[in-house]
Amino acid sequence: MYVYQAMEMKKQILSLKEQVLDDSKIDLDLHKYQNIIVAGMGGSGIAGMILSDLYDGLPVISVTGYQLPAFAGKSSLVIVISYSGNTEEAVSCFTQAKEKGCDSLVITSGGKLSGLSAKVIGIPKNLQPRSAIGYMLMPLLNSFLNLTPEDRKAISSRVSLVFDREPEIRAIAHRIVSERRIPVIIGSGESRSVALRWKTQFNENSKIFAYSTYLPETNHNDTVWMASSNQYPYEVLAFESTDKKINKRIELTQKLTGNKFTIIRTEGNAVERVFSLIAYGDLLSYYVAVEQNIDPEDVSVLVRLKKELA
Amino acid sequence: MYVYQAMEMKKQILSLKEQVLDDSKIDLDLHKYQNIIVAGMGGSGIAGMILSDLYDGLPVISVTGYQLPAFAGKSSLVIVISYSGNTEEAVSCFTQAKEKGCDSLVITSGGKLSGLSAKVIGIPKNLQPRSAIGYMLMPLLNSFLNLTPEDRKAISSRVSLVFDREPEIRAIAHRIVSERRIPVIIGSGESRSVALRWKTQFNENSKIFAYSTYLPETNHNDTVWMASSNQYPYEVLAFESTDKKINKRIELTQKLTGNKFTIIRTEGNAVERVFSLIAYGDLLSYYVAVEQNIDPEDVSVLVRLKKELA
Repeated sequence: MYVYQAMEMKKQILSLKEQVLDDSKIDLDLHKYQNIIVAGMGGSGIAGMILSDLYDGLPVISVTGYQLPAFAGKSSLVIVISYSGNTEEAVSCFTQAKEKGCDSLVITSGGKLSGLSAKVIGIPKNLQPRSAIGYMLMPLLNSFLNLTPEDRKAISSRVSLVFDREPEIRAIAHRIVSERRIPVIIGSGESRSVALRWKTQFNENSKIFAYSTYLPETNHNDTVWMASSNQYPYEVLAFESTDKKINKRIELTQKLTGNKFTIIRTEGNAVERVFSLIAYGDLLSYYVAVEQNIDPEDVSVLVRLKKELA
Repeated sequence: MYVYQAMEMKKQILSLKEQVLDDSKIDLDLHKYQNIIVAGMGGSGIAGMILSDLYDGLPVISVTGYQLPAFAGKSSLVIVISYSGNTEEAVSCFTQAKEKGCDSLVITSGGKLSGLSAKVIGIPKNLQPRSAIGYMLMPLLNSFLNLTPEDRKAISSRVSLVFDREPEIRAIAHRIVSERRIPVIIGSGESRSVALRWKTQFNENSKIFAYSTYLPETNHNDTVWMASSNQYPYEVLAFESTDKKINKRIELTQKLTGNKFTIIRTEGNAVERVFSLIAYGDLLSYYVAVEQNIDPEDVSVLVRLKKELA
């Protein structure tokens, strides 16, 4: 059974290179708004966080809970993302957006939300929500960054190149599992939320504890524990930046804490690097499951929890 | 030497009950602004994050880096917080705020920033930045939440009551150290950033790795690894909420993952509970240092890093 599930999950992960070709677009009139609120949880909510790393023409506020902030109103655009369309926190935010008179739209594969909202961006069913990241991100990036078909093709090529780096990725997975290392992921700038994506993928696909942080903030607290020798084994996965100051910090943090980090290198513009990193982390977390001989797809405890809450 | 330093640090921590009586106030005309940007790193930046948990009349955007977002402009109020006044990321944000024509002010004990800014809220020198949290937060909360002298007295009383719970706090510290447990802190709502504050206090005071998360988001990813038995020892410190839904989630997460969490209970209104939790976490992280016989004040690696970067 694990072999079958693992193959299925891998297919879902590899489909990212097709997902990024999606040309869905939101009909946006940004001059109407003072802020953008993106509401969604877990593997759906991360899309809003990644948007806020890549677009800063307006404040993009992530809501990961039941309540919209008090400031939400006629000058807010509320985008609710829920793969299933039934996430109770997301449904609650959508209802509040209506009550507060906000412009709103929904990105979903179906469920309650697709029935409630007049504006729906539909995405394919039958994926794990966390494996539909391309479908959830592309409508946002196509709209806020005005991506062209050429941009999307370039992203897809970069993603394919990452999937070709399987031996490199498997070697890291093997080290994490065989030495029982805790992944410590360091992002920065446009890759800040991707570091968090890696953490949650390690949690859900690999069923292991993981931690993510971002530079330069890392150098104001985490660096202290990294300099102390009394820790459980960990593997620092640091995303190379295009900003020399950040790379200098990565270098100095290794030197001053006596650690050797694994530097994750990707190429292209900011959006291409973000998707390259998503691809890399998805495949890495998949292989950490495979190396442990566990099912990367299984998140049954989350399903049981939702049932008991209902 | 450690004994002396440890006493000094404890004095700084206990001074929170005086710090919260500070009546400094920002002269605010909130109708002028569409958003509030709070720039600051580490122990200074956390004040802006806690503000955004307690005030949602306008978007409060935390900037933990060198760059203000593109949207920063005449309709933004930029508050730069740096205990030393010399943090290079904070100075960079202040300079950009001037260039972009934003209204701006500075909260600092001195340094470059106090010379650069026409509007300065001064705070006492000779504390560790992370121990000046009361001085950095009160000007924000006095202004945005219109706190009265009675409110501040009530906060101070709550903080004193927490400091009286030393035996309970020491027992947790002893367990974390003697069983080498990784602290996993779970906040929610107004205590979301306080959970992060605990994490950074464990990093800096106790020199140990720690992780923080917040409900309901915890139930969308972390719950998976918590349900897996193959983990290093950890201690879940979950903040009791006034929201029944959140407490139900705490209860169910324990049941479904087979864990027993330590529930941290505090009393009073949202602001009182936030400060009670700050006091609790500060003292706990202090005792985790004491139990290891290390100096809670020492963060020399951060100082060396700043020097090598300059």
